[in-house]
Amino acid sequence: MQLEEKLRELDLADPLAALREEFALPEGIVYLDGNSLGARPRASLARATQMIEQEWGEGLICSWNTAQWSTLSTRLGDKLAKLIGADQGEVAVTDTTTVNLFKTLAAGLRVQAKRAPQRKVILSELHNFPADLYIIEGLTDLLQQGYELQLIEKPEDLNAKLNDQVALVLLTHVNYKSGHMYDMAATTELIHQNGALALWDLAHSAGAVPVELKAAKADYAIGCTYKYLNGGPGAPAFVWVSPELCDATWQPLSGWWGHARQFAMAPNYEPASGIARYLCGTQPLVSLGMVECGLDIFAKTDIPALRRKSLALTDLFIELVESQCAHHPLTLVTPRNHAERGSHVSFEHPHGYAIVQALIAKGVIGDYREPMIMRFGFTPLYTSFQDVGTAVKALLDVLDNETWRNPQYQTRRAVT
Amino acid sequence: MQLEEKLRELDLADPLAALREEFALPEGIVYLDGNSLGARPRASLARATQMIEQEWGEGLICSWNTAQWSTLSTRLGDKLAKLIGADQGEVAVTDTTTVNLFKTLAAGLRVQAKRAPQRKVILSELHNFPADLYIIEGLTDLLQQGYELQLIEKPEDLNAKLNDQVALVLLTHVNYKSGHMYDMAATTELIHQNGALALWDLAHSAGAVPVELKAAKADYAIGCTYKYLNGGPGAPAFVWVSPELCDATWQPLSGWWGHARQFAMAPNYEPASGIARYLCGTQPLVSLGMVECGLDIFAKTDIPALRRKSLALTDLFIELVESQCAHHPLTLVTPRNHAERGSHVSFEHPHGYAIVQALIAKGVIGDYREPMIMRFGFTPLYTSFQDVGTAVKALLDVLDNETWRNPQYQTRRAVT
Repeated sequence: MQLEEKLRELDLADPLAALREEFALPEGIVYLDGNSLGARPRASLARATQMIEQEWGEGLICSWNTAQWSTLSTRLGDKLAKLIGADQGEVAVTDTTTVNLFKTLAAGLRVQAKRAPQRKVILSELHNFPADLYIIEGLTDLLQQGYELQLIEKPEDLNAKLNDQVALVLLTHVNYKSGHMYDMAATTELIHQNGALALWDLAHSAGAVPVELKAAKADYAIGCTYKYLNGGPGAPAFVWVSPELCDATWQPLSGWWGHARQFAMAPNYEPASGIARYLCGTQPLVSLGMVECGLDIFAKTDIPALRRKSLALTDLFIELVESQCAHHPLTLVTPRNHAERGSHVSFEHPHGYAIVQALIAKGVIGDYREPMIMRFGFTPLYTSFQDVGTAVKALLDVLDNETWRNPQYQTRRAVT
Repeated sequence: MQLEEKLRELDLADPLAALREEFALPEGIVYLDGNSLGARPRASLARATQMIEQEWGEGLICSWNTAQWSTLSTRLGDKLAKLIGADQGEVAVTDTTTVNLFKTLAAGLRVQAKRAPQRKVILSELHNFPADLYIIEGLTDLLQQGYELQLIEKPEDLNAKLNDQVALVLLTHVNYKSGHMYDMAATTELIHQNGALALWDLAHSAGAVPVELKAAKADYAIGCTYKYLNGGPGAPAFVWVSPELCDATWQPLSGWWGHARQFAMAPNYEPASGIARYLCGTQPLVSLGMVECGLDIFAKTDIPALRRKSLALTDLFIELVESQCAHHPLTLVTPRNHAERGSHVSFEHPHGYAIVQALIAKGVIGDYREPMIMRFGFTPLYTSFQDVGTAVKALLDVLDNETWRNPQYQTRRAVT
């Protein structure tokens, strides 16, 4: 009872506790997967209904003007900017993370082709989110210009791999598996000192940890709105380009939304200036519109407050798991050092997959990543300290009672 | 009264008349812009609500399995396939038209680079939808491999421009301005005889006119779901690749959704076989899900019935405009020949822009395209013969009374 009392007190003292009411979370669930798909803001349904009934149904084609659909991507970008240390007019919400990665990667290589054409290496991490590596493969394979992907095994290997052949470094700020976070400013400085460009994937950062793109002098950044930003399943992603580089090159997905005169239907492509040139085709407006509901919740708090709570939640989770489950073969993968930790915590266990399934059956939703990694995301907007206690209790129960041995938890499903 | 009587009788005899009830059209509006943004199926709101409340809100991350999100793109593709003469497993609904164009264009050039590397010309039309040309510019500029865009001025110039330098021909089946429709089978045969590949843009065709991709032996096709297919504003687009070519090459936007083992998180890209390799990143699921509501309506009719009504509507519109408005400087741009006509009709008028605005103010919604083109789309699913009469009456009124001279109709807005 002493622990439960302490957790209740932590929740009572939590200045962000009221924000949980902004979300429609199912009863009886502890949701620790907001780093994969953020929970639903209550406002989303009304916003979608408005877009479907009024803007689409009643306004029809006229909504391009009357509902300002044509500027929605950049207006949402302006709302998102302050969460990632960018300025107004520098961010667009559009397309998917992967497509935005392709655009920025291609643009970055183009910049280097002018500055330092001998630089043909794209450097990334072996343990980066695989799609980031796939898109590098896709682009280099398309270009047939001698580009080569090289991978570091650990963040600390970066310095040794940087040399005068490296054109661009693509790193994910917070690793999707380990939860390791880079020092963006120091790492970008190191990359720049070696003459390369820095492209940051913020999928597991935006809305969860402090990001200061401009202060860190980053070159490009892309990220996701459906994780910690709670934009809705598959909601369009975002893209930011340093103003120093933005107008220096085209990005190759040169569609009509990125044209300088969007509705002029001119026969030749003429990119808009600023981040608007990173737009491409017509966006899925209902999914795009709901992004605003997630972003609006951040206006009720700030990143330092979110970060304080996130660290308190992850500290508590690590402490409770390690103290209560010490007799089980669990290994902490996530850095203990605050400066290197994102907003999720991963533990390895030889039966990680089945344990995660058994936990889900008990209403504690985390997820699993190969090999052996149980991943628990702590979204400071809607996770309580009592949630952390409930999750650890459930984990202990599954481990002590070996519930995970149940064959139904062993069967691999499409999505793990 | 004689005409009104005739139109009422045409509507009474229309076997598709009941389908209008499937759509939530605003009262008192004649909507002739379904070729730009299709009207809202009544079912869309309930489907979106289900996806937002249940699948996202309650199911959360588990909906990837329980709501089968991971196969939604290809399941929708299967529903769409019969509307374009494709088989099951050959179509995916994903990304934007422009992005799909980039994928197929890159793949087609790759096929030709193996077959006939000297072919460096991409042939298209000067009057094609500009974004189609922009994306060719973007790709050729990216590749730096000597590719060159050449444009024909008129469809009949195609034969003269085909030669052993042409790698690929990108044509829009129904022209967005003139409404001219190509004979897809004959044109594809001509292209193939000259050793080139045929990529068809079906934006103004799918759901409106007969399309038989396989019978025509087309190589690639892309198109839009938010026009005649009524998928919702900016709903994801579709892509089809001939099974003979599909597995021959990667497409360069190699994201995780196109991976052979979607959730294995393997470090190397290994494309899925079949059209699934044309998937890229996580899709905007709410916008994607609503596509189904539009497609389901087509199950209640068939393309030949839709085509008969479409031609009857466009014939009637041309006949009434030419007979009633003969004293005004209107020029029909759309072919009179049925075999060459899509499902919209365009007239030129020196004051076309202002006339369209004056018509919109009277509740008759068409649109305007530079230079001087007034465009009226006739979606056979929800347009009545009486709508045609109402539209022509409004046009005559605007022309006879010179309502269009009102300064409020002269001011250009962002979207024309």
